[in-house]
Amino acid sequence: MSTENGWSDAHTSLMTLRERLADFNRQRDWPKFHTPKDLAIALSVEVAELLEFFLWRAEPDEKDAAAVQEELADVMICLVNLTQRLDVDLLAAVEEKIATNALRYPVDKAKGRAEKYNRLP
Amino acid sequence: MSTENGWSDAHTSLMTLRERLADFNRQRDWPKFHTPKDLAIALSVEVAELLEFFLWRAEPDEKDAAAVQEELADVMICLVNLTQRLDVDLLAAVEEKIATNALRYPVDKAKGRAEKYNRLP
Amino acid sequence: MSTENGWSDAHTSLMTLRERLADFNRQRDWPKFHTPKDLAIALSVEVAELLEFFLWRAEPDEKDAAAVQEELADVMICLVNLTQRLDVDLLAAVEEKIATNALRYPVDKAKGRAEKYNRLP
Amino acid sequence: MSTENGWSDAHTSLMTLRERLADFNRQRDWPKFHTPKDLAIALSVEVAELLEFFLWRAEPDEKDAAAVQEELADVMICLVNLTQRLDVDLLAAVEEKIATNALRYPVDKAKGRAEKYNRLP
Repeated sequence: MSTENGWSDAHTSLMTLRERLADFNRQRDWPKFHTPKDLAIALSVEVAELLEFFLWRAEPDEKDAAAVQEELADVMICLVNLTQRLDVDLLAAVEEKIATNALRYPVDKAKGRAEKYNRLP
Repeated sequence: MSTENGWSDAHTSLMTLRERLADFNRQRDWPKFHTPKDLAIALSVEVAELLEFFLWRAEPDEKDAAAVQEELADVMICLVNLTQRLDVDLLAAVEEKIATNALRYPVDKAKGRAEKYNRLP
Repeated sequence: MSTENGWSDAHTSLMTLRERLADFNRQRDWPKFHTPKDLAIALSVEVAELLEFFLWRAEPDEKDAAAVQEELADVMICLVNLTQRLDVDLLAAVEEKIATNALRYPVDKAKGRAEKYNRLP
Repeated sequence: MSTENGWSDAHTSLMTLRERLADFNRQRDWPKFHTPKDLAIALSVEVAELLEFFLWRAEPDEKDAAAVQEELADVMICLVNLTQRLDVDLLAAVEEKIATNALRYPVDKAKGRAEKYNRLP
């Protein structure tokens, strides 16, 4: 999907996305609407639109593949708008959370189990 | 929050995150649980945990700032797990969606308005 | 809104609604799709469609009043479909939960406070 | 679950529940927090807590049956609080919506199909 010069997970930083979105929003005078609370609501709404593609079926219909990608993108846009508004460095937060998860879900205890950490043996 | 050598939106690619999560999940034999449908559900659950910090208040309590960052990270982790499982390049999809949004929300029509594109004048 | 002979919160029992929905679904051969998991997903999707009317605004637009009522109805329909599928008596469960809440939120402690019970003084 | 004199879907009206909740909230001085927007958020949060019991599994664990009933009750309480705040008669709205659904999903077209009405043949 990624074109030669386009964005990609391999070559584009989240900072590039943050700056693009900040411009986009500023040009439209949207930051006045973008309270953290409303951005969190927007994120919920977008995630549900994504979830709907899985309703009554195990996987989205073939013909909805592009629509699913659009919803994934919408979720990401909302999430980055929110982290920006809250002044959070998302990947720094993720690195920290993965470290927490590594402690909560040690390989020998969590292997092959889907329980939450507070229910692991 | 980001340490000198740690991850950050400026310096870490999503591919780095994707690979770290793939390892993390594989070590725990979790891919067998990670159906796209369940990952979409997980994403919904995490977003609601984030949203709860905005319930009955305009912004999260000061004392919950670290917990909010954790929830933002959880949302991102679920989203990237899902894009990986669906084999979608998230930033390529986002670039495409921003281009669509630019057409749907031209500056002169959307400026200072919060309506959905199909309700713009 | 309720007509003289129509349903209303005052005069119609949930059992009446349960039976109407059971008929409705059976006629369409839908019970085969109505797994508890998918009904829970459907409920999430409907709630998000309702929530969207509150996005970027304090209250839904006047012109959306009928649409909001429709979404409220959709949420209720999904909820009752799910309780039926799980064989739960919803109002019995609600009575029990209100009793629990009365213990968790005693008037003298909870009065005028929006904190969760585990954070009350 | 329903005791002889307790509430039940067969014998208790939604009006009884509405009045009980109105008292409960008034005693705690909660109506000042109960904006429609926050009640809609609360509903989303409760639905996600319910949904979590279906994550990574087809049905909730046996041992979680009581917890699932509690979550169903929480969803109902939020929904009724919201309808009350918006001054909507829920069962009247539901009757209307079922009539709409009967038109959108005629038996001969919708039988055995899980598609949304705008995708039916």
